[in-house]
Amino acid sequence: MRVLTVGAGAVGGFYSAKLAQGGARVSTVHRSDFQEVVRAGIRVESIHGDFHFTPHRVWEQVADATERADYILVATKVLPLIDTAAVIAPAVGPGTVIVMLQNGIEIEGPVARAFPDNEIVSGLAFVCLSRLAPGRIAHLCHGRVVLGRYPSGLSPAAERLAACFRKAGIPCVVTDDIALERWRKLVWNAAFNPISVLSGGMTTTAIMADREIRQLVEAVMAEVVDVAASAGHRLPEGVIAKNLEDTMRMQPYRTSMLLDWENGRSLEVEAILGNLVSAARRLGVATPRCETLYALLTSLTTARPDAARGV
Amino acid sequence: MRVLTVGAGAVGGFYSAKLAQGGARVSTVHRSDFQEVVRAGIRVESIHGDFHFTPHRVWEQVADATERADYILVATKVLPLIDTAAVIAPAVGPGTVIVMLQNGIEIEGPVARAFPDNEIVSGLAFVCLSRLAPGRIAHLCHGRVVLGRYPSGLSPAAERLAACFRKAGIPCVVTDDIALERWRKLVWNAAFNPISVLSGGMTTTAIMADREIRQLVEAVMAEVVDVAASAGHRLPEGVIAKNLEDTMRMQPYRTSMLLDWENGRSLEVEAILGNLVSAARRLGVATPRCETLYALLTSLTTARPDAARGV
Repeated sequence: MRVLTVGAGAVGGFYSAKLAQGGARVSTVHRSDFQEVVRAGIRVESIHGDFHFTPHRVWEQVADATERADYILVATKVLPLIDTAAVIAPAVGPGTVIVMLQNGIEIEGPVARAFPDNEIVSGLAFVCLSRLAPGRIAHLCHGRVVLGRYPSGLSPAAERLAACFRKAGIPCVVTDDIALERWRKLVWNAAFNPISVLSGGMTTTAIMADREIRQLVEAVMAEVVDVAASAGHRLPEGVIAKNLEDTMRMQPYRTSMLLDWENGRSLEVEAILGNLVSAARRLGVATPRCETLYALLTSLTTARPDAARGV
Repeated sequence: MRVLTVGAGAVGGFYSAKLAQGGARVSTVHRSDFQEVVRAGIRVESIHGDFHFTPHRVWEQVADATERADYILVATKVLPLIDTAAVIAPAVGPGTVIVMLQNGIEIEGPVARAFPDNEIVSGLAFVCLSRLAPGRIAHLCHGRVVLGRYPSGLSPAAERLAACFRKAGIPCVVTDDIALERWRKLVWNAAFNPISVLSGGMTTTAIMADREIRQLVEAVMAEVVDVAASAGHRLPEGVIAKNLEDTMRMQPYRTSMLLDWENGRSLEVEAILGNLVSAARRLGVATPRCETLYALLTSLTTARPDAARGV
């Protein structure tokens, strides 16, 4: 199984290493970390023990990759400035499976339309990772992956990839309704990520301890559940309570969006809130709180010039 | 007419100077600017021509003021940490009229309850002022004052004060429904002030030019109009459109809350949003956007230690 990972930051680097442990031949494309990874590979400092990964080949851009891959693993951020279809196009051949291991909802459309004859496997990673330096990744907790054919249905290609992940110790399930899973993950992301930034840098624990802010979290989650239901994705009763209980059990946690903000990187505002608000408007569902967060966060990130550039 | 001004910052200093021009004998209480005002008085650099004001007496705290005043002009910010009733208590005698020239809604209650036998005149200033240095105030635009007896009704005392303002060239009307005027001013304040801060520092012009943010402004204003109506204060049809048109005609303007934020001073979150949200909950009116702004702004200001102290 030949894999080419595009966007080999923390998520791409970590799961590339895991797929290699599972037996895949994994090459990677690095924009900023190219030289360091060529020199020293990728080092993962994991709670389960540190390990090292040397990609089969390392490329600076997708067009350089001479070897055809069975899977392209897309692990870039979902940002308006990144035209994912154009980025991966040079490596997409007949039969290449495109795996989109990214955040947000309704993010697959442009890639699916650009490659109508290729299978798209959509995926979610439940993991805490942090990029320590070029080629150095900290793995802090979790690691589970959920995969599924886009827009829905069975996928032998996803099953093969899942088997490879599992062989490397990564819990991985394949679902026939990946969109539902994206909405499920969005319940947490749409609330905690924007609020952690707009509140001036609150941890999950601080958010849960503040009555007004926790009420806001719950109300935002309820809006997401409403939109999901109108979009045909009925989340289980009690999904909000479960999210809050799980968060209460977490260590104080700075969301990925907050870390991006504090480090001057771009935020996935569109993937997490913009697409949600668009869906709500399309479906005629009122989401006053999500709209408020979206408008404020868009302005906040636009106001900071460095955030518009970085990735 | 003897006036004692408490909280002689930009607003207090400017209107003290105007009342003196109108013939009142005005003494002032200064916390931080005391020494400079004793030495050199107050200088106002006004669009209508610069002028100078020497208070009749200058005090460092209210308890020092030995001369009884007919009016206490309260021009402090409305902050939870400031117990206005306790601050002014040493200067309140029988017959003293307490004038609260401050922002927000439902701010008079504690003072009215502390001095049930004194007349409370509630007032609003429509003015752009900026404190340049101790004892130096810039007057950038407008100046109009609206006064009215709290909670409502006719007020000869307010009429006398208004006459004094007018003599000094300050347009001043007396209303028998000052609460309505507070709600009217809140329509603008509750939208533009919090959004200017939470959006990362947008001017009024930038806010009006951004479709999402302008929609948010309109929706917040509609919530305020709804709460006002439920509280028995029916604002005129078209009040939102008029606010937006007036704002379009303004020069790019940084709201007072944004200037406070940028200068590390406390924000009047409770007076402008907290009391609004409390009223909405008491009256059973849904204000999801105002609640969102309130929760975020409270957290943002709590997260910054210096903002909790300053005034």
